[in-house]
Amino acid sequence: MESQLTLFYGLCVLVAVLAFAFAAYLYLWVKKQPQKNKTIEDVATLIRNGANTFMNREYKILAVFALIAALLILVFLPSPIWKGNATANIAMAVSYIIGAVLSAVAGKIGVLVASLSNGRSAEAAQKGIKPAFLVGFRGGAVMGLLVVGCALIGVAVVLWIVGDASILLGFSFGASSLALFAKAGGGIFTKTADVSADLTGKVELGIPEDDPRNPAVIADNVGDNVGDVAGMGADLFDSNVAAMASALILAQTLSGGEFATVSMVLCYSLLGLLASIIGIATARIGKNGNPTNALNSSTYVTTAVYMVFTAVATLLFEGFSWRIWGASTTGLLVGVIIGLATDYFTDDSKPIVKKVAHASKSGPAFTILSGVSYGFISAMPAMIGIAVSALIGYNICAPMGEGFAIFGIAMAAVGMLSIVGMIISNDAYGPIVDNARGLAEMGGLGEETIRIADELDSAGNTVKAVTKGFSIGAAGLTVISLLGTFMSEANHALIAAGKEVLTGFDLMNPTVFFGILIGAAIPAVFSAMLILGVDRNAQRMVAEIHRQFNSIKGLREGKAGVKPDYDRCIDIATTGSLRELIPAGMVAIIATVLVGFIGGPCAVGGFLMGNIVSGLLLSLFMSNAGGLWDNSKKYVEAGNEGGKGSEAHKAAVIGDTVGDPFKDTAGPSINTQITVVSLVASLLSSLFVSFSIFM
Amino acid sequence: MESQLTLFYGLCVLVAVLAFAFAAYLYLWVKKQPQKNKTIEDVATLIRNGANTFMNREYKILAVFALIAALLILVFLPSPIWKGNATANIAMAVSYIIGAVLSAVAGKIGVLVASLSNGRSAEAAQKGIKPAFLVGFRGGAVMGLLVVGCALIGVAVVLWIVGDASILLGFSFGASSLALFAKAGGGIFTKTADVSADLTGKVELGIPEDDPRNPAVIADNVGDNVGDVAGMGADLFDSNVAAMASALILAQTLSGGEFATVSMVLCYSLLGLLASIIGIATARIGKNGNPTNALNSSTYVTTAVYMVFTAVATLLFEGFSWRIWGASTTGLLVGVIIGLATDYFTDDSKPIVKKVAHASKSGPAFTILSGVSYGFISAMPAMIGIAVSALIGYNICAPMGEGFAIFGIAMAAVGMLSIVGMIISNDAYGPIVDNARGLAEMGGLGEETIRIADELDSAGNTVKAVTKGFSIGAAGLTVISLLGTFMSEANHALIAAGKEVLTGFDLMNPTVFFGILIGAAIPAVFSAMLILGVDRNAQRMVAEIHRQFNSIKGLREGKAGVKPDYDRCIDIATTGSLRELIPAGMVAIIATVLVGFIGGPCAVGGFLMGNIVSGLLLSLFMSNAGGLWDNSKKYVEAGNEGGKGSEAHKAAVIGDTVGDPFKDTAGPSINTQITVVSLVASLLSSLFVSFSIFM
Repeated sequence: MESQLTLFYGLCVLVAVLAFAFAAYLYLWVKKQPQKNKTIEDVATLIRNGANTFMNREYKILAVFALIAALLILVFLPSPIWKGNATANIAMAVSYIIGAVLSAVAGKIGVLVASLSNGRSAEAAQKGIKPAFLVGFRGGAVMGLLVVGCALIGVAVVLWIVGDASILLGFSFGASSLALFAKAGGGIFTKTADVSADLTGKVELGIPEDDPRNPAVIADNVGDNVGDVAGMGADLFDSNVAAMASALILAQTLSGGEFATVSMVLCYSLLGLLASIIGIATARIGKNGNPTNALNSSTYVTTAVYMVFTAVATLLFEGFSWRIWGASTTGLLVGVIIGLATDYFTDDSKPIVKKVAHASKSGPAFTILSGVSYGFISAMPAMIGIAVSALIGYNICAPMGEGFAIFGIAMAAVGMLSIVGMIISNDAYGPIVDNARGLAEMGGLGEETIRIADELDSAGNTVKAVTKGFSIGAAGLTVISLLGTFMSEANHALIAAGKEVLTGFDLMNPTVFFGILIGAAIPAVFSAMLILGVDRNAQRMVAEIHRQFNSIKGLREGKAGVKPDYDRCIDIATTGSLRELIPAGMVAIIATVLVGFIGGPCAVGGFLMGNIVSGLLLSLFMSNAGGLWDNSKKYVEAGNEGGKGSEAHKAAVIGDTVGDPFKDTAGPSINTQITVVSLVASLLSSLFVSFSIFM
Repeated sequence: MESQLTLFYGLCVLVAVLAFAFAAYLYLWVKKQPQKNKTIEDVATLIRNGANTFMNREYKILAVFALIAALLILVFLPSPIWKGNATANIAMAVSYIIGAVLSAVAGKIGVLVASLSNGRSAEAAQKGIKPAFLVGFRGGAVMGLLVVGCALIGVAVVLWIVGDASILLGFSFGASSLALFAKAGGGIFTKTADVSADLTGKVELGIPEDDPRNPAVIADNVGDNVGDVAGMGADLFDSNVAAMASALILAQTLSGGEFATVSMVLCYSLLGLLASIIGIATARIGKNGNPTNALNSSTYVTTAVYMVFTAVATLLFEGFSWRIWGASTTGLLVGVIIGLATDYFTDDSKPIVKKVAHASKSGPAFTILSGVSYGFISAMPAMIGIAVSALIGYNICAPMGEGFAIFGIAMAAVGMLSIVGMIISNDAYGPIVDNARGLAEMGGLGEETIRIADELDSAGNTVKAVTKGFSIGAAGLTVISLLGTFMSEANHALIAAGKEVLTGFDLMNPTVFFGILIGAAIPAVFSAMLILGVDRNAQRMVAEIHRQFNSIKGLREGKAGVKPDYDRCIDIATTGSLRELIPAGMVAIIATVLVGFIGGPCAVGGFLMGNIVSGLLLSLFMSNAGGLWDNSKKYVEAGNEGGKGSEAHKAAVIGDTVGDPFKDTAGPSINTQITVVSLVASLLSSLFVSFSIFM
């Protein structure tokens, strides 16, 4: 059986390399596309430079954080260095750093590719929707392939070398702690710029979106890159790694046939990447085709290919089980269903968006109230979906023996995240074509080109809703299986300390209950801090934009040669978001540590559950309500309920402004927050066992 | 020991009668106050009639619901009538009806007293703040004393007669199911009217609040009565009964010395009422005194008196324990702390309100974003408070023996709710003086009188925040102890069925987890349905107001003798809210039943916990954010950040409009929703044991 395992390690590396090669091919293809328009090139350069400035400053701060964390890990984890063996501590610290570096690399790659594709997609739009779509999509695919390839090769190689899956917790924590700050920082940056640009440009001055007179317009485009592309890349890299790590740790602790279960996790992960490669390679759009359909159909192709591939693997390989295949397939299908439900609440061809647009006719208060309400309702299907897939995954695998039940949940998460390569491609497509639209406007490419870019952008928004539902669902399942990982890690420590092991976390135990309530409050506080960060920053930037419009002569009128000071705005967004990112990121980590040292493992178990439950609820609520408001605004702008400039439009714009930090700062960051908390808990479990006040 | 129990039954009845007598005295005192102004009398009559019309129509619908529920109880509960003994079923059904009727009576009394006090308080304000305060406060006190007296005498007499505390579940369910619908219906009514009146009057036409030209102005005042007074009375009646019922059921199942524990619950409850009587009797305000301080200091007097009384009782009576006293005192003190924390986030002399007012200068989106953020953060202290008091209550009482630990949590809830008589008095004071302000305006009592009425009203708003924090905290603790009740009821059924008993609800059990996720989604869906109800209704009413202003000649200009059609607005609010109340109320009940019949007792245990956690989070968030927006608006209106008519003011009004259904419809209704769900679960536990699909 050990030879089977070696086979899969090798295959993981092979498929990852294949993904890299395919990404390189697509990268060269994109690069080959023409970029002739001087203005677009100039602006694209400004955007690229802005993004690089922000990311360099951000990574400098995060490098300090990561070094401190690595040092702490070296001394204390998995067990204090003076007690355990030093090799394990070194392995953990090194894999932490690898995780953190790969996460940063994922972000950098995203920005590089996006800044390459956006201008080219804009120019391609002059020739029609087909070439413009392909440039945007292939740019996104480079990102998707590289991120998933890095995750797969990283996990496989670390495990191959050290052999002990629990070291992957360090790798995963490196990825997720960086993702937490990258999402928080990038999320604050992007929405600071977006909200300020909209408020001053669209609302006050009535100039179009992406008008080059607006001093915040470059910062807004930079934000799309550092928030949506880099942040999202780091986020999904982290979820993907966490899902694999959790499944692998559980697989290793399973009694009997552990090699087969470990092989299965590796096999399912590599087949997911392979399926994504095929899905990406076969993505097509007709000459006047619908980009939404093109994106969705490649998702379905990937799903079907994955299911067939894993079924074949189950037939072929010794020790593979149909039950595991069932759990993984359930996860994937439920992911698709969650995506469709999200789509129902946020797509502007469906009734909900129309209702919110209609409510806007009575004023902004009704836009907000109806959006909040439907946002809350929209959380229900996903919550049910996650609950049902956990229940099914658990029960399908329970008959396989002790410990397999929770492993079934982990495999449902792996299944849901299997097609993450495809998901990231679709997700990265969004900000690329969003940027392309802006560049088409600024480059003066004409009405028709802007219309095409608009259509591509709108498809990006719609698909984003689906992929967001997917990634929240997967994060939900992953952290549930991480709860299992936490219990198994805590039990190792309890056995070592000669104490009674945990058999579960009883809701009737007030220590658990104590943890649940605190855990449930954290995502609320965390997201509030992020939103307040955007709020504070945007107020500063609005003041700066007003200053520029008042002091730079001829700017307001668009006099030739008069340019706003774009850099000041980029600087405000950068400085502000870097100031806000550390406190918001730390609050969740510190709360976990405090609860653990006060209440011990039982309190932490409750804490994780409370955190998962309220985190899922709030992140679904915020992401969906934000998407809903965004599309309601677009629906009104398309000429409904009074169209542009009407009272309904003003109200819809206010709704969209509220929704922006909901859907692009707080909502998706909560995802990362719950993963980080789960990993911190698992990592520190032995310390909680030794040093808690009450337990 | 049985004689001791009889003594306490008798004392309960005695103290309840004392409370009734004191209420009668205060009622007569209020009635004796002069009411001379003809306009005020007319308007007060309109309000009274409107309130009665609504409540009569509402109670007719609820009577049908209650009869059906009573019939179902008669047939199925506590066990199917063909299996168990018929007497228990009859007792359960009858006590259900008593609970429902007393809840309706509590609502009716509230409206009666409020409609008597509001006009008199307005007229008294001509003589100064002192007499006006006293009329408002004593009017509220009548309500407080009667509601708590009814709860105490109801619980004591039912238990005295039937002897089996679990029959109290029927009584409590009667109270809470009615409260659920009354809160939902009244909450939708009041905010429909309030929001419509504000939007058309203040925002569009720029006429003052309570201007008699506004067709919705009477409906708005009716709403204060049916929503805030009647709904709140029913709500706190229900919480009070549920806390007593849960503690009594646990007390009866405790092994050994059961009479002493039952006596203690009764004794603590009656001493709470006694303390409230003393607090009310000693409430004073100086000639130019501060009404907020007067209200708060009587709360503190009540708290201190209660602590001393219960300490004395512990010294005096055989079998009473200092541990129980500790648990109850902890609950009470934590209640005060939660109240103070709520105050910090919603009082306009504190920084948070000022920050939100300042953010309003940048536009309504920032009002909303900052209010939502601080609302989320404000949930944290209360969540910690509840968690800590449960932990302390549990650990203080755990050494007393098996089962005492969870009883400790129940006694913390009893402690927190002990001073509910005082709380209701303060709470009912709010809408009375709010109405008084409106009547002073409509009756033309002059600037100075309106100013005094305004001051009284503002104190009402501030105190409301504190009492709301209190009641949410208490509901949280009560439902936790109801979770214990549910487990003990389910175990009775499991033993009877010869199945293995539950020892707890393990988070790692996916059936429990399944329940948690569904349970957590319910408060979100429930509150969304209520808000959408307000939204839909208000849109209808706004259309009607526009119609009247356009078609009734001279109305807009305020021509003498021209009156709007107040009744049409009242009718719209009534019909609309009655249409919305049943679906919103049923969603929670049906979800509980479905989860129970699908997943059995384990799923229900998880469901209750998910429901509690997300219910607490959302209700704290909504209540506090709403209060925060309301007071930010008032702060701007007081001349800050640009004052009335400024852009900041417009933004603050939008915030207030969003906050209205948050704080007066959805937020407080969630409280009742979680109680109802817990009671439904306990009541149906034996059916879930027998008939669930998976378990």
